[in-house]
Amino acid sequence: MPLSADQQSEIDALRSQPSQTLRAVSEGMEGHLYKAIDVLDHGFVRVIDYMGDDAAICQAARVSYGKGTKSVQNDEGLIRYLMRHWHSTPFEMCEIKLHVKLPVFVARQWIRHRTANVNEYSARYSILDREFYIPAPEHVNAQSVVNNQGRGGVLEGAEAARVLEILKSDSNRAYDNYEAMIGETGPDGEAQDGLARELARMNLPSNIYTQWYWKVDLHNLFHFLRLRADAHAQYEIRVYADAICKVVADWVPAAYAAFEDYRLGGATLSGKALDCVRRMLKGEEVTQENSGMSKGEWREFQGVLA
Amino acid sequence: MPLSADQQSEIDALRSQPSQTLRAVSEGMEGHLYKAIDVLDHGFVRVIDYMGDDAAICQAARVSYGKGTKSVQNDEGLIRYLMRHWHSTPFEMCEIKLHVKLPVFVARQWIRHRTANVNEYSARYSILDREFYIPAPEHVNAQSVVNNQGRGGVLEGAEAARVLEILKSDSNRAYDNYEAMIGETGPDGEAQDGLARELARMNLPSNIYTQWYWKVDLHNLFHFLRLRADAHAQYEIRVYADAICKVVADWVPAAYAAFEDYRLGGATLSGKALDCVRRMLKGEEVTQENSGMSKGEWREFQGVLA
Amino acid sequence: MPLSADQQSEIDALRSQPSQTLRAVSEGMEGHLYKAIDVLDHGFVRVIDYMGDDAAICQAARVSYGKGTKSVQNDEGLIRYLMRHWHSTPFEMCEIKLHVKLPVFVARQWIRHRTANVNEYSARYSILDREFYIPAPEHVNAQSVVNNQGRGGVLEGAEAARVLEILKSDSNRAYDNYEAMIGETGPDGEAQDGLARELARMNLPSNIYTQWYWKVDLHNLFHFLRLRADAHAQYEIRVYADAICKVVADWVPAAYAAFEDYRLGGATLSGKALDCVRRMLKGEEVTQENSGMSKGEWREFQGVLA
Amino acid sequence: MPLSADQQSEIDALRSQPSQTLRAVSEGMEGHLYKAIDVLDHGFVRVIDYMGDDAAICQAARVSYGKGTKSVQNDEGLIRYLMRHWHSTPFEMCEIKLHVKLPVFVARQWIRHRTANVNEYSARYSILDREFYIPAPEHVNAQSVVNNQGRGGVLEGAEAARVLEILKSDSNRAYDNYEAMIGETGPDGEAQDGLARELARMNLPSNIYTQWYWKVDLHNLFHFLRLRADAHAQYEIRVYADAICKVVADWVPAAYAAFEDYRLGGATLSGKALDCVRRMLKGEEVTQENSGMSKGEWREFQGVLA
Repeated sequence: MPLSADQQSEIDALRSQPSQTLRAVSEGMEGHLYKAIDVLDHGFVRVIDYMGDDAAICQAARVSYGKGTKSVQNDEGLIRYLMRHWHSTPFEMCEIKLHVKLPVFVARQWIRHRTANVNEYSARYSILDREFYIPAPEHVNAQSVVNNQGRGGVLEGAEAARVLEILKSDSNRAYDNYEAMIGETGPDGEAQDGLARELARMNLPSNIYTQWYWKVDLHNLFHFLRLRADAHAQYEIRVYADAICKVVADWVPAAYAAFEDYRLGGATLSGKALDCVRRMLKGEEVTQENSGMSKGEWREFQGVLA
Repeated sequence: MPLSADQQSEIDALRSQPSQTLRAVSEGMEGHLYKAIDVLDHGFVRVIDYMGDDAAICQAARVSYGKGTKSVQNDEGLIRYLMRHWHSTPFEMCEIKLHVKLPVFVARQWIRHRTANVNEYSARYSILDREFYIPAPEHVNAQSVVNNQGRGGVLEGAEAARVLEILKSDSNRAYDNYEAMIGETGPDGEAQDGLARELARMNLPSNIYTQWYWKVDLHNLFHFLRLRADAHAQYEIRVYADAICKVVADWVPAAYAAFEDYRLGGATLSGKALDCVRRMLKGEEVTQENSGMSKGEWREFQGVLA
Repeated sequence: MPLSADQQSEIDALRSQPSQTLRAVSEGMEGHLYKAIDVLDHGFVRVIDYMGDDAAICQAARVSYGKGTKSVQNDEGLIRYLMRHWHSTPFEMCEIKLHVKLPVFVARQWIRHRTANVNEYSARYSILDREFYIPAPEHVNAQSVVNNQGRGGVLEGAEAARVLEILKSDSNRAYDNYEAMIGETGPDGEAQDGLARELARMNLPSNIYTQWYWKVDLHNLFHFLRLRADAHAQYEIRVYADAICKVVADWVPAAYAAFEDYRLGGATLSGKALDCVRRMLKGEEVTQENSGMSKGEWREFQGVLA
Repeated sequence: MPLSADQQSEIDALRSQPSQTLRAVSEGMEGHLYKAIDVLDHGFVRVIDYMGDDAAICQAARVSYGKGTKSVQNDEGLIRYLMRHWHSTPFEMCEIKLHVKLPVFVARQWIRHRTANVNEYSARYSILDREFYIPAPEHVNAQSVVNNQGRGGVLEGAEAARVLEILKSDSNRAYDNYEAMIGETGPDGEAQDGLARELARMNLPSNIYTQWYWKVDLHNLFHFLRLRADAHAQYEIRVYADAICKVVADWVPAAYAAFEDYRLGGATLSGKALDCVRRMLKGEEVTQENSGMSKGEWREFQGVLA
């Protein structure tokens, strides 16, 4: 259970006190505010705040004095046009702030997206909880033999059991020793000083959970989602991206629909690939050999057309 | 008058429709929303949206589940601590979106602050209005003789009159010719194609007004304000910074008070300068000659102590 | 002529003094260093410095201790792979610093690319030269009737003549008055104070030339070039992008070739468009009506397949 | 020993082949290129490339055609002026690329500096080495009792011995199990698939070493060094910052000297603190009670004046 009763009651308190505002409000997003969406075994995503809605994207694109057009249809057309033509600045005019609880190895991938604001829980200052990511059995996979940075089939039997046993016992031993090092009592009950927390944390494996506040604009969030909700992303970050996708679809429905069509569901074809498509449409037989593409490119190209 | 009746009524409409929200609300900021604060002769600053308040800064610094402490006093102490120790990320958790109307030469200075989001009115797409910045007589100054990038005394008499006359007549002639070039009727009433707007705009001087939506987080806004509300900033951008300072003071009073004390009212002393202060406090006679500073540094140092 | 004899001799002096270095050297780039490539009537692009080459991209991708593979073929394959899969960080490991002279209205578009470093010539501090962009007759176009932010056909006859005459005379009058305002002698030969340069510059139109040092990494430069070397970019910035493309092709030939294939020559198809391609390849008759696309999208899609 | 014989010979090969270049060369930096500076027990910092020198800072500030002034003294004065007045853009015109080997918990602090370019060794793709940071006995400290995020005195005797024993044995066990999980042979010699590397890595503690290429401009590097070479930074990142400080002092001696005086050796005083200084210089008795400062601020202020 990611949330304690205390935490849940803090959230409930926040949700019970609506205020009046003159700002743009997204009804779909109000329903998400503060609630924790469970991800993995102990993680979550919570919307802490947001700025803007679909109309705000159009209002900024038009640099308008008021709400701009009242027509939702016009707004959708404009949003699709902006997305198709890579106009990024109007999407930057919306902002979201999330509270995320996630394993450290996921956090290390996530933080590579630099155009965002982050406040992470400090293990120099505070003591981490005993919460470690242990994969569900159906997510314990072999190393891929075709993709050096991917997973193959699910491990089964004794090997899977050994892996889960190792992860659990090493996590617990590491945490026991973390507590022993920072504690004020030694193994024989004698008083000890306790190791500095900034040092003791180094004994903890990277499946331990951390948490942060993460704030990002919609354009950069879409970039994050395109890469991390992709089939090539590691499963453990993809589930966070998937959870966020659902939130964004409720927040800015028109922008999310355009993102889905042009980015998630779209593909970029190279000049060579476009040339092959044109030849194929003329009825020409195009093969890897006469395509000008390498085997890897051709395989990916076939995947796009399939 | 910067706003037309239509624009004013669009603003009034937006202000007349409060909605309910579960988000953090800054009462001080709600009072500013959408209203135009006049700046210079035709410019303004309008708050379009905001995210967060003083409590949100603390909540992020603590990565908390709820509102965190209920004590305003604790929050003020934390905010002062964060500001004093250059913790920038909690301040990045607040965001503001402004609609600004400003002369192009001011926009060119402003845009140098890169960590912000901008949508500018497009003179490729639209026709600019006939609105030019003409300084008030008390802001028409001579070139400074001590500071190569500053102003000296106010110009008076015939010289001032000539300057204002030039600025007005050149602006108007440039705009007349802009209209003539893009118009569909030639000087003798014959039909003409009309020059592309993206070309015609190049005839306009940089005292013409443009406008944009500008969105920035509070940390980067403070950086902007520190440089642009400074006495060394050009008057025409400083008045925008001053107007924004007042808005921020109403939005996040504790953060603004800390900013005022530690940044606007503070000063950074070099190692050499600190050494001089220590010697002076011991009663030693310190002069430029024995200070280790250049004449320029010494003069600035004297200014700080005065 | 963009360069004076003095400037040319400064450049010649820099080019006559090679030094020894242990850093990666791009022979193709050494040939460009310091030389001015003419752009428009008074502008130029000069390479001031660079960091890295094709091998440096691969070396960073591999986090290698030495040069990595000696095989140029392997490096090319890796670079194509990185470009195809949107790996941006290895391309960020190369850097270029340019000195650019350009009209102010071009500079205003250019500066919208925020992930770069800029030092612009200061018209608060210094006096601008009397150099204005006056388009060549074949680049004086009408407003497009199909694209609100584009150009139509070339203007001819009396209308074209009027435009050029206006641009020239307004530029000269504005500059005459700029000089008159900052000068220390009034119209009747009497002494005057001279207007502050930071004020006087506002009288100058945006076809005046400015200059700056601009430093950017290769990933962000490619992004700039994709947008600004595009057919939809305004001609006056496109010629700068085209000039830079040639420099980059000499600097990092493999990376540039991949950029040309995957970005300049490629296209992103939406999910709807990919679906249409698949249906067309199966022999189905696909029209705008049954494509699910708007008319504008369908027209652009037809353009990609043509 | 951080470098193997193979790695050392790769470095030696790179250092034995100087090339000619027309670019600005920093002789002090050429001496550092590629060599590894040892940091901690297995870490290092290596300069891979650099762009610019002290003169390049001035050249950019002046937007000059050639080398600008030949006078080193003038350049030093200009650099001090730029640093004193917070002109950041000329310092952004120099760039450095480092290869760094560092423990993961240090990497996690380091990466918070977002305005930089990074390529990290991928543990999804490759297998990590068995190299863990084990502090030297003199750096095993107790938790500070005055500073929640700092260290107190050095641990001694049995407690220190236990800490070191735990860190060593947990590291080794975690690595043994990492190898066992990814290996193709099970504990009884039977064949197994081997766990995906992207999963197995999560068992490794954060004192394991990783490595990356890190590229940053001089302005942002100074910001990093100011925070990380500070006495409040964690020892394990401070030693990296200290090593880099020495490199920068050889690369851009004038800029580094200005940085040392104005940033490392300087201090920012608040408006309240400046007021106290002024009162003290007039001979007034100023105490915490009449200073307007909190106890914490007053203690820090006393530290600055001491």
